[in-house]
Order: sequence, then structure tokens, then C-alpha cells
Amino acid sequence: MLRLLPRIKPGRQSIPAIREINQELGEDSISTDDEDLKMHGYSEWSSVNIDRLPVAVAFPKSTAEVATIARVCHKYKVPMIPYSGGSSVEGHFAASFGGVSVDFLNMSEVVAFHPEDMDIVVQPSVSWMEMNENIKSSGLFFPIDPGPPAKIGGMIATNCSGTNAVRYGTMKDWVVNLTVVLPDGRVIKTRKRPRKSSAGYNLNGLFTGSEGTLGFVTEATLKLAHIPQESGVGMTTFKTMRDAANAATQIVRQGIPVGAVELLDDVQMDVINKMGATGRVWKTLPTLFFKFSGTKLGVQDNIEDVRKIVKDNRGSELEVEQDKAKQAVLWSARKEALWSMLCMRESGHEVWSTDVAVPLSRLPDLVEISKRDLDKLGLFGSMLGHVGDGNFHETILFNGAEERELVSKCVHDMVHRAIEMEGTCTGEHGIGLGKKEFMEKEVGEGSLSVMRGIKLSLDPFWLMNPGKVFDP
Amino acid sequence: MLRLLPRIKPGRQSIPAIREINQELGEDSISTDDEDLKMHGYSEWSSVNIDRLPVAVAFPKSTAEVATIARVCHKYKVPMIPYSGGSSVEGHFAASFGGVSVDFLNMSEVVAFHPEDMDIVVQPSVSWMEMNENIKSSGLFFPIDPGPPAKIGGMIATNCSGTNAVRYGTMKDWVVNLTVVLPDGRVIKTRKRPRKSSAGYNLNGLFTGSEGTLGFVTEATLKLAHIPQESGVGMTTFKTMRDAANAATQIVRQGIPVGAVELLDDVQMDVINKMGATGRVWKTLPTLFFKFSGTKLGVQDNIEDVRKIVKDNRGSELEVEQDKAKQAVLWSARKEALWSMLCMRESGHEVWSTDVAVPLSRLPDLVEISKRDLDKLGLFGSMLGHVGDGNFHETILFNGAEERELVSKCVHDMVHRAIEMEGTCTGEHGIGLGKKEFMEKEVGEGSLSVMRGIKLSLDPFWLMNPGKVFDP
Repeated sequence: MLRLLPRIKPGRQSIPAIREINQELGEDSISTDDEDLKMHGYSEWSSVNIDRLPVAVAFPKSTAEVATIARVCHKYKVPMIPYSGGSSVEGHFAASFGGVSVDFLNMSEVVAFHPEDMDIVVQPSVSWMEMNENIKSSGLFFPIDPGPPAKIGGMIATNCSGTNAVRYGTMKDWVVNLTVVLPDGRVIKTRKRPRKSSAGYNLNGLFTGSEGTLGFVTEATLKLAHIPQESGVGMTTFKTMRDAANAATQIVRQGIPVGAVELLDDVQMDVINKMGATGRVWKTLPTLFFKFSGTKLGVQDNIEDVRKIVKDNRGSELEVEQDKAKQAVLWSARKEALWSMLCMRESGHEVWSTDVAVPLSRLPDLVEISKRDLDKLGLFGSMLGHVGDGNFHETILFNGAEERELVSKCVHDMVHRAIEMEGTCTGEHGIGLGKKEFMEKEVGEGSLSVMRGIKLSLDPFWLMNPGKVFDP
Repeated sequence: MLRLLPRIKPGRQSIPAIREINQELGEDSISTDDEDLKMHGYSEWSSVNIDRLPVAVAFPKSTAEVATIARVCHKYKVPMIPYSGGSSVEGHFAASFGGVSVDFLNMSEVVAFHPEDMDIVVQPSVSWMEMNENIKSSGLFFPIDPGPPAKIGGMIATNCSGTNAVRYGTMKDWVVNLTVVLPDGRVIKTRKRPRKSSAGYNLNGLFTGSEGTLGFVTEATLKLAHIPQESGVGMTTFKTMRDAANAATQIVRQGIPVGAVELLDDVQMDVINKMGATGRVWKTLPTLFFKFSGTKLGVQDNIEDVRKIVKDNRGSELEVEQDKAKQAVLWSARKEALWSMLCMRESGHEVWSTDVAVPLSRLPDLVEISKRDLDKLGLFGSMLGHVGDGNFHETILFNGAEERELVSKCVHDMVHRAIEMEGTCTGEHGIGLGKKEFMEKEVGEGSLSVMRGIKLSLDPFWLMNPGKVFDP
């Protein structure tokens, strides 16, 4: 599965590097325990795993300690792999060339909270969910909502998004500044703390989404948004996936400012019923879930507008909850979707989770064709989409090499189809190891060569997370 | 004023380069007329002008022709300077090292309009105002609104924004993909046409705001937004600048989703009265102008919320217009502000227009101190702010070298103050020639070295718009 980098090959001076980190930062700073290595080199969530593991796992406590680790690894030409939540699905933290995994476990503090400036300064292992819980009383929140285990460092690395992206954009839109340890140990701060700036190259936008290949993000200032005055959750079912996708794209196209619009297929709804985590039996039909938010009166306007479009597309009566507790119950199906799928796995079975995004108007076509393909496959797979921004996911369970081949073909076909529709091989998961092969088709050799030039300017020995995004 | 680049000095092989462009693209493709040179090397809008002019001005008609120009200039090591609207104010298109100005005059077409995908594909000399006029009937618009003469190419180059930024963000948030001619003539397209993507480095975000120093943007796909159902314009006056700034920041801080909130000082209001372009006499007091937009009911909510905060800060009764024609009249004062200032200039007098941005909570302090400084100066200057995102402008008229010194000191003091308040030396104008000296203080030597590395990876001979943003 792994091809060697053709030109640059990180050295193997791991042992003296580990010794030196140990000497400089103390015994607890670096581990070579088998359990630690396995935990940082393998993921049961991931669609791609490799045989190799990191040779050590470092646990820095500060930017200065990360800089020391980088300086030592740079000196011995040892690969470095940043690690925070560990929930990425494309092999982002796999140790393709061994090296040291740098786990931000001990860097999980909120450094400063500036409610008056609507921003917050955090370390990479802060959980977005805990952070939101802690600042709730200020009336502010961080609107990017990937999977619950995700942490800020990884969210920056993959330019993640989630259900709120249709309203609030993606991770890159919420970064005010970053403190970055470069591959040679130098520390930079991309900018100060203005909410907007035109001063120099946009390094925030460059490091965000670079998947740990350009440096370690050790601190981030993030913009915050206001918790809307009023909110609501809605749900409706459709006869076909095409009807549901049509309704979703029409809602966005008509400018109804929904907070989220999520499509779950019949298989997904059936799985949620089977796992029984929501305390309700759902119809096993293509289903749209909505979030509404805004002023009290604005939300009423939006609900009525959505109701009309749902009806035009032969949807069932829109069910809406505005009471906070009842909203949570109705949204629970959406929230439990991935977990329910994962619970369906029998022992030893694997999961392949993938995402693509296309221009809005192509979404109904892509959803319909992909659904047909998935059904033909004869394996167990479901579809779920952040359809308001043309982004959707497939999650497929499988067992053994033969079934892996089938899944792989299905995913490849979907990705190629998405790119041919002027879309992308990934809307929010990132490239990692799993989607490198699609990069050239998607962005072209010219753009890839520009990316390679940037990479080499910052990391000439290709030490930062080597083997990910693209090869030399 | 201009210091020579210490290490890299573009060659002077202009004459054979001009001849070769002429041969390859035809007689009309390149001009050496004095008038053309002057128009492309000097700007009466700009706070900085230099004595040197470009040696020629090229007028490409396509991406392929731009690639030819770049290939020839690269071969002879001749500097290249992109030019579109010519309305930038920090010497962005000054010919610091001579070279060829590349004017996109003949590339002003809408290439494709995809209302169903909510995007539009345009060439660099498309005017944002004309574009919005032409697509109005689709219910869509492009929300970034810099000065009226601005064109898309320059708007991308400076990561511009304008009055709508508090609601819609800045230029970088609206770019789907870019076609870029690199300094050696290669053509890349940053990505396909998905509204979101996590595939590879964010080249859109890198080229946007790079001020033409990394390549020529020859085509851009831009996201569009929905024209809100309902809109309104509001206006109120305050006793002091601090009261006005406090009201503005409280409105944003409380999450009232205003479409814009603009602060004009007493001097600015007086100038508008004197020029008489609005058909109304305004009070010469610190004044806030608002845009409201949303659903019918949502706008009512917002107006009432703003009214309360204005009252809490001792503002006058909020005047609101919701009729389209009356809105335009009320907004006219804001719209005519800069033009009125420029009309005040006597013959031979110059203008210095500058902007900074700071974290929201620091805005009232900065505005108050800067206003006091400006008054002390004894020159004619006004203040105007996009205060909802902590960004504001000073426009100062002056005559001769002695007064230039005074203005320069005033601007320098304001910029240093903004940076010390964790702000930026420019929120939306960009660096150009005029603000290079502040870059190191703002982003630090480390970030500057990263930017230099990126620049060298794409433009090793420093041919693209040399002398701007930072030096080698």
C-alpha cells in the first residue's frame, strides 16, 4: 500500500534522537512502550492503516518543548507526526516512515478567553465540545462541529467542518492566528489578533489544512460566534434520495439561512433503529434533518419557507421542535448516525468512511448514482450528507481483503465521479494517506508542484508527517 | 524612498523582452507610450508614489497571452506588475524596478455564471459593481464591496473587504478557485469548483492577498450570496467618538447581525455637507450608519435591538429607512465620504489614505487617541471606520514635503499603536510599498522568513511585483 518517497528519505537516527529528547525534557517526555506506539500508529476508525508504527511517542508540555523535539528530530533527520484527537479517518497520523509521534495530550489548556473580542486562545488538545461547554455562559460558541472526539489541533490540520458549515463555513474561516513550530524548531506566530488583516501572505490559511506536513500548531486563536437567540430542529422523510437531495439544494439555493441540512439514507435510519440509542423508531426512508437558528421571528420565517419546499418535493409533514430538550431528542438520530454504524461492526470487521463534495447542482445526481452503486455492492454501507454545501459521506462495513477490494472500487468510482463533476475528493476529511492518489487528477500537476515547492521551502528534508497529502 | 533589494536584482533586458512580446502577440499587445507608462506607474489616490515608471504596458487578451508575457519576461529577467482597477492606495502597482505592467483591460468578461451552484467565473478586470448589477435578477450578489473602481483581480490581490465584511467576511472567504499564471509562464488552476474542500494546501488562500507577488490571477470562480429578502439603512449621531465606537462594538458583541456598521467623524460629516453631493445637511457629529438585512421579521428585531444600544450610549434617535429609494439617500453620506474628501483637495495637494484594524475591545481607545492626534496635527484629515470588525481609516490632505512629514508621523504613530494593541497595520488596503516597514513588527522575523521562502519557491528571481509586501 505504501510507496517509498522517491527522492527524500528521512534518516533512521531514531535512537540518539530519543535519547536526546529524554535528556533535554525528562523521562516522562517520551515513550517507547508498545501500547503507546500501537495507539499512535493504528486507528480502528480509519479507512487506511499500515504495518509500520512510530518508534516513540513524545508528550510535550509547551511550545518550547515542541521546539526542542523538532530541533532534535531535525538534527537526526527523524520524521515527526503531530497527534491530537486521533479521530481522523484517512491515515493522517500513520507512521509511514517510523519516526516520533508528538502527542499534545499535555497541551489541552485554554490559554486566554477574550469574550469582549469574541476570540479564544487554545492549545492543540482542547476538545471543541468541552470548550463550547465551558464558554456557554458568555453567549459565545465555536461553530465548527466535526466528530465529538476531534480536537483543535487536528481540526486545523484537516480544515474540518461538520453540520454547521453550510451556515458558518469551515475551520480556515475561524482562525485568527497560529503559533507554529517549524520543522527545524523555530517558532513563529502567523499574526497578531485582529479579526481581519491584509498584511502579508495568509499563513493561517496555509497551515490550516496542511495536515501537519508544514509544522506543529502549538497554539491557536479562534474567532467565536454568538449563540443564536432562537433555535429549532426539523425532520422530514422523502420517497427517494433524489427528492431529498433536490429539496436540500433548493433550500440553500433559495437563500433560506438554515443552520444545517443533513441527509441520511434509509440504511442509515434503519441502523439507528437497530442500535436503539435514540429512544424512538424512525421511518426507514431518506430523511432530512434541519437546524434552524436566528432571531425568534426569523426562525419562524425560515421554518415556513422550508415547509413549502419540502412539500414541493413530496416530503412528509415537517416535524419541528423548538423546546431545547425536545430539539436534542429529534437531533439525536443525526448525532448517533456514525456511532450506530460503528456499533454494527462484528468483531474483526473494518469500516471505510469517506467523503466527497461537488457543486450544489450536481449533488442530486451524485447521491443517486452513488446510492445505486452502494446497493449493487452487496455490502453494508450507508450514506449521510452535509448536503447544504454539496458534501456527503459513505460509511461501509467490510471483512477481509476480498471485500476491501469491492469497497475500494466503490469509493474510487465515487471519488472519480465527484472530481469529474468539478468536485473534490474530500470536503472535510482531508487527504492523509488514503486520498493521495486523487490529488493530481483533482488539482493538476501544476498546482501539485506549487504545493511541493512550498513544502520544500519549509521542510527541505521532508520530515514533517512524511507520506501524507502528496509525495516529493 | 525606495531601497534596493539586497540580494536579487531583476535584469534590465527590457528591450528584447518588449520586442519578443510584440512579435508573439502583435502590435496592440504592448505599449511604450508615455501616457500609458505614467497611468500605470503613478496614482493620485495613493499615499505613496515613486519616480520610476514601467518600461512598457502589456494588454493580454487571454490566459495564454499572459503566459506568453510571463515566459518572455522570465527569460529576460524583466519584472512584471499586474494591473486591474488601479485604485489601490499603498503603491501596489508602482514600478519599483521598472519592468512590464500587465493591464487586464482586455480581460473583463464573465466567463460563466452558475446560479444553480451559486458561483460565477470571471476575468480579473470585471468590476464588482457591474457584475452585481448584471446578475441582480438571479437573486444573487457578490458581497465584498471595496471602493467603486476596484476590479476583481486587485480585490483578490489585496484580500479586500469593505462595509459588508462584518457580515460576510473578506475576499479570501469567497474564492472557490483561481487560474494563476506563475512567474515562469506555467498555468495552474488551484482547484475545481466545490464550495468546500480539504484537498491539499489552500492555494486560494495563499494567492489571495499576495499582492501580485506570486503570479497573475487570470480567472477566478467566486461564491455568491443571496440578496436578503428585506433590508434597511439606519443612521444616528453621538456626542463623542468614544460613545459611537462603544455603541458599534456593543452591537457586534451582542450578536445583532447587522449588515454593516460604519463610523464617520465630525470632520467627515462636515466635508460631506460642504461638497453637497447628498442633497441633505447632516449634523457635524460622530455618526454611525447601519445596514440591516434578513427576513422581514428578522430585520424588525435587529432594528429594535440596535435602537436600544444606541440609546444606552447617548446617541440620537435612530433614523431608519426601509424603502429602497430612501435607503439609498440615507446611505449616500457613507457612499460619498471618500469622494467628498478627495474633492476637497486643492490643486497640487496630495492625499494619504490609510487603514488599521485591532481587536474589537481596543477600538474605542484607538479611535479616541487617533482622533486626538489627528486634531493636534493641524492638517485636514477625517476618520471613517468599518468598526464592526475593528477596522478604520484615516484620510489626510496635505501639501508639500513638510506637511508630508507631519502626516507620515501621524500615520506611523497610529500603526504602531494598532500593532501594540495586537492589531494589524492594514485591515484591507494591503502592504504594497507603503506599509512594508511595519511587517516585521507585526508578524515577526520568523513569519517573514516563511513568506520569503514561499516567494522564492515560486519566484526565485523575484520578478513578480518586486519591491512590494517585503524584500528578500
